[in-house]
Amino acid sequence: MTALNKSIEPGDSPDLTEERASGTFDTNAMAAVIYGSDKFAQRRREISEAISKIPELADSAPLPFLDRFGKVTEGSRKLSVILENIDKLIDPSSYEEGLHLYTEVMGMEGHPLALHEVMFIPALIAQASDEQQVKWLGRARRREIIGCYAQTEMGHGSNLRALETTATYSPETQEFILHSPTITSLKWWPGALGKSANWAVVVANLIIRDKNYGPHPFMVQLRDEDSHEPLPGITVGDIGPKMAFNGGDNGFLGFRNYRIPREYLLNRHAKVEADGRYVKPPHAKINHSAMIRVRSHMATGQGALLAHALVIAVRYSAVRRQGYLEDKSREVKVLDYQTQQHRLFPSIARAYAFIFCGFETIRLYDQLLIDVQNGNTSGMADLHALTSGLKSVVTYQTGEGIEQARMACGGHGYSMASYISEIYGVAIGGCTYEGENMVMLLQLGRYLVKSIEMIQNGKSRELGPMVAYLAENESEIDLNLGPNEYLKVFEYAARNQTWRATEKFQKLRNSGMSNEKAWNQASVELTRASRLHTRLYIMSTFINHVGSIVDQKVKGVLIDLLNVHVTYEVMDIGIYVQGLLSSNQMDLIRNQLYVSLETIRPNAVSLVDSFQISDMQLRSVLGRRDGNVYENLFKWAKSSPLNKTDVLPSVTQYLKPMMEKSKL
Amino acid sequence: MTALNKSIEPGDSPDLTEERASGTFDTNAMAAVIYGSDKFAQRRREISEAISKIPELADSAPLPFLDRFGKVTEGSRKLSVILENIDKLIDPSSYEEGLHLYTEVMGMEGHPLALHEVMFIPALIAQASDEQQVKWLGRARRREIIGCYAQTEMGHGSNLRALETTATYSPETQEFILHSPTITSLKWWPGALGKSANWAVVVANLIIRDKNYGPHPFMVQLRDEDSHEPLPGITVGDIGPKMAFNGGDNGFLGFRNYRIPREYLLNRHAKVEADGRYVKPPHAKINHSAMIRVRSHMATGQGALLAHALVIAVRYSAVRRQGYLEDKSREVKVLDYQTQQHRLFPSIARAYAFIFCGFETIRLYDQLLIDVQNGNTSGMADLHALTSGLKSVVTYQTGEGIEQARMACGGHGYSMASYISEIYGVAIGGCTYEGENMVMLLQLGRYLVKSIEMIQNGKSRELGPMVAYLAENESEIDLNLGPNEYLKVFEYAARNQTWRATEKFQKLRNSGMSNEKAWNQASVELTRASRLHTRLYIMSTFINHVGSIVDQKVKGVLIDLLNVHVTYEVMDIGIYVQGLLSSNQMDLIRNQLYVSLETIRPNAVSLVDSFQISDMQLRSVLGRRDGNVYENLFKWAKSSPLNKTDVLPSVTQYLKPMMEKSKL
Repeated sequence: MTALNKSIEPGDSPDLTEERASGTFDTNAMAAVIYGSDKFAQRRREISEAISKIPELADSAPLPFLDRFGKVTEGSRKLSVILENIDKLIDPSSYEEGLHLYTEVMGMEGHPLALHEVMFIPALIAQASDEQQVKWLGRARRREIIGCYAQTEMGHGSNLRALETTATYSPETQEFILHSPTITSLKWWPGALGKSANWAVVVANLIIRDKNYGPHPFMVQLRDEDSHEPLPGITVGDIGPKMAFNGGDNGFLGFRNYRIPREYLLNRHAKVEADGRYVKPPHAKINHSAMIRVRSHMATGQGALLAHALVIAVRYSAVRRQGYLEDKSREVKVLDYQTQQHRLFPSIARAYAFIFCGFETIRLYDQLLIDVQNGNTSGMADLHALTSGLKSVVTYQTGEGIEQARMACGGHGYSMASYISEIYGVAIGGCTYEGENMVMLLQLGRYLVKSIEMIQNGKSRELGPMVAYLAENESEIDLNLGPNEYLKVFEYAARNQTWRATEKFQKLRNSGMSNEKAWNQASVELTRASRLHTRLYIMSTFINHVGSIVDQKVKGVLIDLLNVHVTYEVMDIGIYVQGLLSSNQMDLIRNQLYVSLETIRPNAVSLVDSFQISDMQLRSVLGRRDGNVYENLFKWAKSSPLNKTDVLPSVTQYLKPMMEKSKL
Repeated sequence: MTALNKSIEPGDSPDLTEERASGTFDTNAMAAVIYGSDKFAQRRREISEAISKIPELADSAPLPFLDRFGKVTEGSRKLSVILENIDKLIDPSSYEEGLHLYTEVMGMEGHPLALHEVMFIPALIAQASDEQQVKWLGRARRREIIGCYAQTEMGHGSNLRALETTATYSPETQEFILHSPTITSLKWWPGALGKSANWAVVVANLIIRDKNYGPHPFMVQLRDEDSHEPLPGITVGDIGPKMAFNGGDNGFLGFRNYRIPREYLLNRHAKVEADGRYVKPPHAKINHSAMIRVRSHMATGQGALLAHALVIAVRYSAVRRQGYLEDKSREVKVLDYQTQQHRLFPSIARAYAFIFCGFETIRLYDQLLIDVQNGNTSGMADLHALTSGLKSVVTYQTGEGIEQARMACGGHGYSMASYISEIYGVAIGGCTYEGENMVMLLQLGRYLVKSIEMIQNGKSRELGPMVAYLAENESEIDLNLGPNEYLKVFEYAARNQTWRATEKFQKLRNSGMSNEKAWNQASVELTRASRLHTRLYIMSTFINHVGSIVDQKVKGVLIDLLNVHVTYEVMDIGIYVQGLLSSNQMDLIRNQLYVSLETIRPNAVSLVDSFQISDMQLRSVLGRRDGNVYENLFKWAKSSPLNKTDVLPSVTQYLKPMMEKSKL
């Protein structure tokens, strides 16, 4: 009989094989659920297989052994190998296949084209006129130029109104003069800006005859296309090492009265005529959807990062033995400890939940695009608010889960051989970029307050489907009826907290306080409402997605995982449901959680195997598919740079003289 | 009039000076409270001043710009400069002055003598006989040799019983034969073992005539004292890069039938006679106190790391401006946002609480040493349990607080220029080393269960003072009476949870389950009891310490900070006090928390200034005393290694050909 788990191979650690043999579902079938279709799951495996056949695509050394020069060089080197082989590897027209290829080969530490495809080209598509696209889009797509998107400044992130870079129109020469008036106006952080890009879309305040028309996008050449040297008037460089992404060259950029032709204002929406006349864009607020798109994809991306860390921690926990339970003759797998299960299994549930939630959100986004094309923009605000909260909750919980996964690996988790701290650095960046989490939560908060105000004004029926529960009454909870009852508990919590926070804000405002001050004093309570609302949405999409699954074995284990999820999440927000659940009901949920941890235990390894993250992509000695951790940990360490010689020059230069001197 | 805040200087950021001018207490007086005496606080300032006068003690480049070779070399270089100048800098007999000197000059990334003073020498003192001390202790103290302490193995951390390294006695030659029988038996992780140490205290199973006497400490020479080459039979090296401490050379060590003389068993407690007769130690369990000592100091050390991150985040939050409140003409300091205050101020309170708690625990430890010398070891178990829990709670909350501090700095927090991610890496290691946190919590859990059993057996009066509350009844809470009422709330929570967890364990065991299985199934609930018990202790020592302060202005602001603490902590454990506090009382506490955040706001910068961490020690562009962040961020970035040339070799080698090819 073939095992249902497809990751078993001869020579594997028997501890892992034992786990895999106990799995109750087909891991390929689960992968099809995780990646949206059996076909794409299959393609992923084929692409990974094809990659493994090209030795030049492998890391030339474990990435943690490289300094920044090494990482940046490695990214460029592999990029050239990818481009040489791309037709053999993927269907270049498939975004998903490309993503899988880049993720696997490049890893997560950054590379020179990272922003070219994701930010630069989309910005050209969205903001360049048809004429301008003819001029630049083809060049960008053929990679004749490397571009980036320069908006954030050293002193200015979330608040676009405060950007300082200016683009002053000079009617005499029909040019814009780009200028950075202060240090804080330097562009700061844009990916690939520092060393790689020779062109950029730059956001600057458009000034015509001393009047500021606000931030506009300009196409700007930064470096000579032959020498790659920065052009006169341009100051550009790398912003230095970061918590992660050190293979990437996030950069700074300053202008000293740098002139560009009038035609370089990206003028799909707004234009400046030769005489300096400003032609307004037909619609304001046209550009919300780009943010929604990026944030929708973040749920899936962060879910994948959490999954990545969990593959490592769960496999390692089945190999690592420590301490004794009943059998005193052999140490027990640490995965058998309840504390370990409680650290890891609710995070497995969240990883699945985030990925499913990403699907649903992207579906809503695609629907929105259709609606907008049909002239219906009513859903824009709803989805913008939702994705703001989602981005915030998912990034925070992902970071939390990854760190717990790392700590669950004990001492070796702390070694870069686990690679989990690198994954953490990458994931936790998401709490800050694409909108700082507190700012995001308060954007959703504003939407929730508006929804309550609609209810207060008798307009409950106009509420969107995702906030309709705010107008409902609480109902009796019968926990025996399954996950949907837990959803009601979350609705109660989110509704109660939203009303509480809104009423606090309104009361302060009504007491004569300014709107801004009242908002600020209610803001912590508002962020709590936003988190609960978002977590309700995540749980709801998880439940719905599991309900739609056809394969009964896969569905069975996902229902078990859902039971971990709903019990854990409700316990986690226990303080918000005191008015609803009795202490007996809370005890019941708590016990259910512990039972569900035991239920999922035999499938734990199969659940993480199903993510089908290859060893190449994992880059983790602890997480290897074969579970042969210890001998490879030794190999890894022996090959690390400090071990090239037995005696370090610094010992000869400093420590030996110190010891000699003492002997005199 | 001179400002009470002593950190004001001409040329500072006006935003910071404004904050400092509003402080209501003398920061030197607060530093005296933080560092235990005005005299030592003054010495710290003098030492920092003296260090700043020796340019060779400064970092030769910002540490994040160095690779591991650079960091290791930098540590050795500075060590030699320190030793040349030590008499000018500190009183070498003062442990505290030495610690301050090393912390400031070396930073936190590790150096070759880090373990020599803290582990190797104390191990010789505790375990070498008087004769052996004559032989080795002087050499160690004069730094003629560099030592480390090698206990942990690749496959074995917390469970000492499972160590695999053997030291087999050979009566013929009167030698021990050290051997590493497996890969998992390699010593792994010991600090300074990889490249620096030439001697080690090695823990191995003592085998005499096939009988295993368990782990014993041996003095072992690893490297030739002249050539520094590893001796034949020794395999030694660096374990590779880690999440932090990359200036340190944590190492691996294997033995191939490596012989050492019989006299190299450290025999203060146990001995092997020439004929192989084993002489038992007079007392078992003699060595608990070393662990207690290390863990007691961890509370202070972690408090200092949390403080370190908060100095950076609070100062930067007073300089960084973003968004608007009422005044639309100028962006507001981000420190004025309630969400930012809620992120940072409860952590300031915790940093103070941990430091005070460290004092109290070290006092208890010193008392214990006196008691033990007088033959009374009864307090050993109590303090061992307490410090196990303390280590766990303090390291976890410190890590949490540091990460929130980093995120509170927005994008620039993610740059290594903030240095906060390095502080995080260092601090969070504490969750794992010196006893993994879950294991630690369960050690305390065992003690708590025993305490409950004493109560159940009618022996309440024999309970130690720290667990007496477990036998008490709950009382009415009148929150208006101040912090001690909050303490009662915590007592209620800890008592309730401890009883609940114990009863769960007992019920399972009584149902016929084995002791181990019942313990495992109750373990998550037990860890919760341990955390609550520990947090109660922290709050209680904070309250007592503030009560003992004489300076009225200092005491006043610490009472404000205590109000942040007690309200925040009780809200944080709200789910455990549902049976005690009414929903009105919870609302009251919540509102008190928000009020207390506003109350502490004008003193926030002065509270972090009071830690008196010099710019050299901070190593953070964002946290600079003068607040001149932006110009220095630009300087820092421009000097980073990737900016040495405008065009990277990797661009010339890979990216330019890619772009050229496309143009054809």
